[in-house]
Amino acid sequence: MTILDGKKTALEIKNEIKLKVSDMKANGERVPHLAAVLVGNDGASLTYVGSKVRSCEQIGFESTLIRLEETITEENLIQEINKLNQNETLDGFIVQLPLPKHINEERVLLAIDPKKDVDGFHPANFGRMALDLDAFIPATPFGIMQLLERYKVPTSGKHCVVVGRSHIVGRPISILMSQKGPTGDATVTVAHSRTQNLSELTRQADIIVMALGIPEYLTADMVKEGVTVIDVGITRVADEIHPKGYVIKGDVAYDEVANKASFITPVPGGVGPMTIAMLLQNTLLARQWKV
Amino acid sequence: MTILDGKKTALEIKNEIKLKVSDMKANGERVPHLAAVLVGNDGASLTYVGSKVRSCEQIGFESTLIRLEETITEENLIQEINKLNQNETLDGFIVQLPLPKHINEERVLLAIDPKKDVDGFHPANFGRMALDLDAFIPATPFGIMQLLERYKVPTSGKHCVVVGRSHIVGRPISILMSQKGPTGDATVTVAHSRTQNLSELTRQADIIVMALGIPEYLTADMVKEGVTVIDVGITRVADEIHPKGYVIKGDVAYDEVANKASFITPVPGGVGPMTIAMLLQNTLLARQWKV
Repeated sequence: MTILDGKKTALEIKNEIKLKVSDMKANGERVPHLAAVLVGNDGASLTYVGSKVRSCEQIGFESTLIRLEETITEENLIQEINKLNQNETLDGFIVQLPLPKHINEERVLLAIDPKKDVDGFHPANFGRMALDLDAFIPATPFGIMQLLERYKVPTSGKHCVVVGRSHIVGRPISILMSQKGPTGDATVTVAHSRTQNLSELTRQADIIVMALGIPEYLTADMVKEGVTVIDVGITRVADEIHPKGYVIKGDVAYDEVANKASFITPVPGGVGPMTIAMLLQNTLLARQWKV
Repeated sequence: MTILDGKKTALEIKNEIKLKVSDMKANGERVPHLAAVLVGNDGASLTYVGSKVRSCEQIGFESTLIRLEETITEENLIQEINKLNQNETLDGFIVQLPLPKHINEERVLLAIDPKKDVDGFHPANFGRMALDLDAFIPATPFGIMQLLERYKVPTSGKHCVVVGRSHIVGRPISILMSQKGPTGDATVTVAHSRTQNLSELTRQADIIVMALGIPEYLTADMVKEGVTVIDVGITRVADEIHPKGYVIKGDVAYDEVANKASFITPVPGGVGPMTIAMLLQNTLLARQWKV
């Protein structure tokens, strides 16, 4: 059994990007520049955005944090986005979600120039990805593809069951894994809340991607020997013994499933750490595609 | 066993659109206007475009056929497209494929304003469809959804196996059928040329969409009793006895599979006739969304 170590892989990717940035600097080129827009003071959002900005600094990117009042109008937020769209020295930017309730997230995301949409949430990017054109792939599925590629997990002709059909994980990973290519060519089934007899499907699967958000849902009896398991779930579960009062659980009953698996991602330390690395990778691509 | 009669359903849809157009006229509104761009003199393309234009006339749409020389440069073709993009009295247009070899089809399709892309081939439309936003759905998958809806074929929680992963049929229908909604909520598997043990999958399927292009590939031993079969295949097979010298075959061995099926589309007369109706429906939507 091989653990797909997201922490280690993310660090490798960051180091590779860092080297490229050094080369850019040495050649007198402008380095990639990422901006993050944060509306309001939500604690978790502050933490996420802070760690994205810090990662930029670590690898030599330029970064800009734009903090806006919780009370900003949708119109004014979209004006800010238009400024970022037009800023020639900026390669990509993200708008940290969730936004305050009085703002329509869809309208805001649609205002982002797809060429700067390094989160890959704009429909123009989604469509380009689905139609095999160059595109920014959302960070989580992009991270999963990198883990599969770097650990040489066989995918061609394999049956992959994706549990969950969200716009940012289930749907895109199902498309990517069934496309032609080195980590593609799988036969892919998308299962979800309406699926009947889920365990019948998962027991047939060579690869399972769990993106359901129910802690420890996938148990050993639901998988076959030799399965590859990718766990995208991250749920806080109350735990009195733990100093924080909670522990982070994935969608997979890790200990029992790991015993039957060929490859498995742990939680934490699996898919999670890959997401920031792939955001940085998208920003590097945005810089390169601009030339 | 119920035959999903595409010819009859297409006629119903055209009549519904015709009524709406009559209402528009009665209210003094401008009627929907579709243009078709045809480059060169390919016989099959002429036939297709001709029948699209005739259908427009039948239901009261305005239509324009733009014929361009086989030798037109890519740049000049894109200029023509820009004119159509800017033409305020035009709701939608299509560029008949294939284009001559010296022209890059991808660049041409990307030049179409997504708001007038009634073929639904532009990535911006594809992404909007995949992310559950209003979008022009490509005619073939749109037609399949209409057949399922109008014949009340149950889809929620059913296992649908889509054989083929093309950009205009397999991929979009797999997304549509697994989305939430009246003809969605299916558990969907996308199978393709690299799939192993296809018949194991199809034997589990409640619904099979064949979009492979291999005549009579799906045989009775590959399906279970009560299956719903949608046949997108259209292949000319040489037939000396037939006056035309060929017959049209679908991907399904119709006679033997029909014996086991609950619902099945014939070829011809199934999915085929639906495509022009759905192009007209998209043009009507383009007109309505413009208001």
